[in-house]
Amino acid sequence: MSITLFGTAGSTCTSLVLTTLFEKQVQDFVLKNVNLAKGEHKKPEYLKLQPFGVIPVLQDGDLTIFESRAIARYVSDKYEGQGTPLLGKTEKERALVNQWLEVESQNYYPVVSSIAYQLVFGPRRGLKPDEKVVEQQLEKFEKILDIYEEHLAKNEYLAGNFFSLADLSHIPYTYLLLHQAKKGEGITSRKHVKAWWDKISSRPSWKQLLDLRAQS
Amino acid sequence: MSITLFGTAGSTCTSLVLTTLFEKQVQDFVLKNVNLAKGEHKKPEYLKLQPFGVIPVLQDGDLTIFESRAIARYVSDKYEGQGTPLLGKTEKERALVNQWLEVESQNYYPVVSSIAYQLVFGPRRGLKPDEKVVEQQLEKFEKILDIYEEHLAKNEYLAGNFFSLADLSHIPYTYLLLHQAKKGEGITSRKHVKAWWDKISSRPSWKQLLDLRAQS
Ligand SMILES: N[C@@H](CCC(=O)N[C@@H](CS)C(=O)NCC(=O)O)C(=O)O
Ligand SMILES: N[C@@H](CCC(=O)N[C@@H](CS)C(=O)NCC(=O)O)C(=O)O
Repeated sequence: MSITLFGTAGSTCTSLVLTTLFEKQVQDFVLKNVNLAKGEHKKPEYLKLQPFGVIPVLQDGDLTIFESRAIARYVSDKYEGQGTPLLGKTEKERALVNQWLEVESQNYYPVVSSIAYQLVFGPRRGLKPDEKVVEQQLEKFEKILDIYEEHLAKNEYLAGNFFSLADLSHIPYTYLLLHQAKKGEGITSRKHVKAWWDKISSRPSWKQLLDLRAQS
Repeated sequence: MSITLFGTAGSTCTSLVLTTLFEKQVQDFVLKNVNLAKGEHKKPEYLKLQPFGVIPVLQDGDLTIFESRAIARYVSDKYEGQGTPLLGKTEKERALVNQWLEVESQNYYPVVSSIAYQLVFGPRRGLKPDEKVVEQQLEKFEKILDIYEEHLAKNEYLAGNFFSLADLSHIPYTYLLLHQAKKGEGITSRKHVKAWWDKISSRPSWKQLLDLRAQS
């Protein structure tokens, strides 16, 4: 039974799931494109799968699951025995992977997505960026990155000396920040954050995602 | 080796962890009070444990872990064999617990915490509530609750017919919304949401938490 993922490779949230599938070497899945510009994510049949009307959603047999971070966990858990182990091997490793997944979700993401909204998503819909919001969020981001810098000076990856879902979960929005919002100075100006970013963003899984974007 | 939890029973985030410990029937832990009014969470020795300067943090032997949702997961995982099973028993149950944990984290919490900030936390520091923000967030909250209502009409608990960490994670902020922000109409006016709330908030674990608050 193969997996169906509803979403689009261009979106950050779908990219998180796709990159997880690539890391886990899952080949047996179909990406069903959801056209946001046409509002397909607000149609009744889609809302039956994802009541909040956002992408992505994954179907696997009789299981329908949404929320990108939950889907990424599901894929990492289900394919535990293949590809890159993403959730940690010991109780302690798992605890630290979970901790940094939450740091992404509760600290990093709110700030980066708010900058992205002002500088990328809003303007696509004709909105002008609110410079004050951008400035405030960038200031917050600097403080967060100082904590990352100190941590990454002592640890190769977020949860320790192994790549995990905690690192992966940072890739889609950080890429957007650097390449579309053009606000990546905080990343590139910090020695250890930059080294970490270079490492995680040059993984074959992310290259495969960018290739898929280029084709679509 | 016993667990040390740094935080305070009056805070929502610490309450999530304490209630999880109670559900798992963990007795062997110490709550070390962190006095927020005195700024103890911004002192250098505390920042060594929690670099973001917020509560809670848990120490268990040589493991230090922060972020309340990650700590709650850790406790649920470590004490898998005792107390209430909180993470689901099958792959599918685990997927749905994870999905609803993310719904809390990404949809429910941002809205409720923003209302709580305007009406409870801000005023404690002498700030006046921004009525427009409150109104906007309450409008958003209504839409979220409509989705919960439809879901809970068909499911006793969020992840299915069993109580889980997904339900538990909603308790501290919902309690604050009802009893401190006094904005609980959305909850009490919806038949299935209300029934769910009555059930989860009358669990002995939450009563134990309220007792602990009353004593401190
Ligand atoms: N918390 C959700 C967020 C999903 C989300 O915001 N998806 C965006 C694309 S990255 C979307 O569907 N946007 C379209 C819209 O909001 O109308 C998740 O992680 O799955
Ligand atoms: N995402 C963090 C948030 C922690 C948090 O915001 N803690 C609050 C208490 S509920 C705090 O320490 N506030 C004090 C402050 O921000 O100065 C978690 O879930 O642990």
